[in-house]
Amino acid sequence: MFNILNIIEFAAILAFTISGIRLSAAKKFDYFGVLVIGFVTAVGGGTIRDLALGLTPFWMKTPMYLIGTFIALPIVVIFKKHLVHLNNTLFIFDTIGLGLFTVVGIQKTLDCGFPFWVAIIMGTITGSAGSIIRDILINEIPLLFRKEIYALASVIGGFVYWLCDSLNFTHGVTEIATAAIVILVRVLAVKFQICMPLVDPEEKEEKG
Amino acid sequence: MFNILNIIEFAAILAFTISGIRLSAAKKFDYFGVLVIGFVTAVGGGTIRDLALGLTPFWMKTPMYLIGTFIALPIVVIFKKHLVHLNNTLFIFDTIGLGLFTVVGIQKTLDCGFPFWVAIIMGTITGSAGSIIRDILINEIPLLFRKEIYALASVIGGFVYWLCDSLNFTHGVTEIATAAIVILVRVLAVKFQICMPLVDPEEKEEKG
Amino acid sequence: MFNILNIIEFAAILAFTISGIRLSAAKKFDYFGVLVIGFVTAVGGGTIRDLALGLTPFWMKTPMYLIGTFIALPIVVIFKKHLVHLNNTLFIFDTIGLGLFTVVGIQKTLDCGFPFWVAIIMGTITGSAGSIIRDILINEIPLLFRKEIYALASVIGGFVYWLCDSLNFTHGVTEIATAAIVILVRVLAVKFQICMPLVDPEEKEEKG
Repeated sequence: MFNILNIIEFAAILAFTISGIRLSAAKKFDYFGVLVIGFVTAVGGGTIRDLALGLTPFWMKTPMYLIGTFIALPIVVIFKKHLVHLNNTLFIFDTIGLGLFTVVGIQKTLDCGFPFWVAIIMGTITGSAGSIIRDILINEIPLLFRKEIYALASVIGGFVYWLCDSLNFTHGVTEIATAAIVILVRVLAVKFQICMPLVDPEEKEEKG
Repeated sequence: MFNILNIIEFAAILAFTISGIRLSAAKKFDYFGVLVIGFVTAVGGGTIRDLALGLTPFWMKTPMYLIGTFIALPIVVIFKKHLVHLNNTLFIFDTIGLGLFTVVGIQKTLDCGFPFWVAIIMGTITGSAGSIIRDILINEIPLLFRKEIYALASVIGGFVYWLCDSLNFTHGVTEIATAAIVILVRVLAVKFQICMPLVDPEEKEEKG
Repeated sequence: MFNILNIIEFAAILAFTISGIRLSAAKKFDYFGVLVIGFVTAVGGGTIRDLALGLTPFWMKTPMYLIGTFIALPIVVIFKKHLVHLNNTLFIFDTIGLGLFTVVGIQKTLDCGFPFWVAIIMGTITGSAGSIIRDILINEIPLLFRKEIYALASVIGGFVYWLCDSLNFTHGVTEIATAAIVILVRVLAVKFQICMPLVDPEEKEEKG
C-alpha cells in the first residue's frame, strides 16, 4: 500500500521528528532520549487518534515511521550547524505535515463512522498532540497553547473539509482544499505573528 | 438518551471545565489553550476509563461535552471578577461532579463484567484523572497528591457501592448513597482541612 | 494461572513500586499520592503496551499488582532508614524486573501476531514507560533520557530474543537468554557508568 499520500506523509514525519530531536537535544537528552522524543513527536497524535477510534496505532503496521526516526537523527547531527539556516525549510515541511495529518485524521475518523465534529477533533489531535506530548516529556508547558495559531489551523481546515463534503466535491478536491487551508492559515499566522488572544486571568485578591 | 443523569452530569462537566479554564488562564494560555485544558479536565478521566474498558470514549458519542466547554468559556470570561465570590458555588458543583463521575465509572465497569475492585479504581479514575492530566499540561505537580482528600472520597464511595450492592439494595438507592458519601467526605475534608498524612521522605545522607 | 513467571513478576513489581513510592515521597506526596505513583510506575508500561495491542490492561485481570502496591508501601515506611543500605538489593530487583518485563512485552506482542520490530518496541515500553510516567507525574524530566543505559538494555535484549528465535532455540532458552542479557547490560552500564552520549545541541545564535 504505497501511494503518494505515504510519500508526503513520510516527509512530514521527518519534519515532526526533527523538531522533537532538536528540542530534546537542547535539553541535554542522550541519543536514546532524542530518538524516543523524535518518534513520539511524529506518531503521538496519530496514536491517540487510533486508540480513541479503537484501531491499532498506525505506526505498528509499517516500519516506515520508525525508519523515519533513524533517518532524521543523522540529519540533525550532521547538519547541526546548518539547521538554523534551514529553519524556513523545516517550517515548510512541518506545516505541510500539519495539513496532511489533519486530512488523514479526518478521513480515518469518518471512515470509522463518526460524525464530522468528532472528525475535526481527531484531525486536530493528529496534527498537534504529538508536539504536546513532546513538550510534556521535556517538562515544558506545551508551546501550542501560547504561541502563534497552530492547532486552530487544523480546526479551520476541518470546517473546510465539512463544507467541501456538503457541497459534494470529490474526495481529491476536498482533501487538497483542506490541506491547503491548514497550510495557508499557519503560514499567515507565522508571517503576521497572529496569536490567539490570551484569557485574562483573574486578579489574585488573596495569597495562596 | 436524555435522562436526569445526563443533566446532572452536564452541570458537573461545566464545573470541571471551569476549573481547567481558570487554572490555564492563570498560566497565560490563549483562548484555544484554555478550551483544550477545560475540555480535557472534564473528559480526561472518563476517557482513560473507557480506553481501559475497551470502549469508545464517551464524549465521542454525543456533542454535549464539547458544547459544555464552549458554554463554560464565556461564563469564565464574563463573570471573571465575580468568580472568586462564586468559589463556593463552583466547589459544590465540582464536588457533585466527583460523586456522579464516581458512580458512572463504577457502573460502566461493572456493566463490562469486571470485579468490584476494578470498578472502584475506575470510579476513582473517572472522578480524578482529568484534573491530573490538567495539572500535567500546565506543568504543575498534580494538586491531588498533596491537598485535601479528593480521590480518596471516590475510593470510599466505591466501598459504599460495594456494601449497598452486597446488601441487595436497589440500583437507585445504591447510586444515591454512593454519590452522597463521596460528596460528604469531600465537603468534610475541605471544611476541616483534612489531608492525608505525608510520607516522610528518607533523609538524604549524601548528595546527588 | 499461577506460575513461576508470575512469582518473579511480583518481585519485580515490588521493586518498581518501591522506586515510585520513594521518589514521590521525596516530593512530599501524601499517602494516597505515593500509592498512586507506586502503582503507576509498576503497571504503566504494560498498560500502554496492552492498549496499543488492543488488549485489556493486564493489571485489571488479577488483583496481585494492586496488592503489590499495598505491600510495598509499608516496606518503604517501616524500613525507611534502612532503604538506603538496601539500594543494591533494590537495584537488583529493579534490574530483574526490567529483564522480565522486556520478555513479557515481547512475547505478548508476538502472540498478537505483530512482527519482531514491534515486539522489541513493546518490550522496551513494558520495561521503561512506567518510570517515564512516574517522572511526568512528579514533574521531573524523565531520568531515563539522561542517565546510564536503561531502556537500551531492553532493546538489546529484544535483538537477542530475535536472534535466539531465528536459531530455533526453545522458548525457555530464548526467554532466559533475553532476560539475562538485559540484566547484564544494565548491571555493566551502572557498574562502569556507561551512558549514551548526549546529542550536542545547536549553539544558540540568537535569543528567543
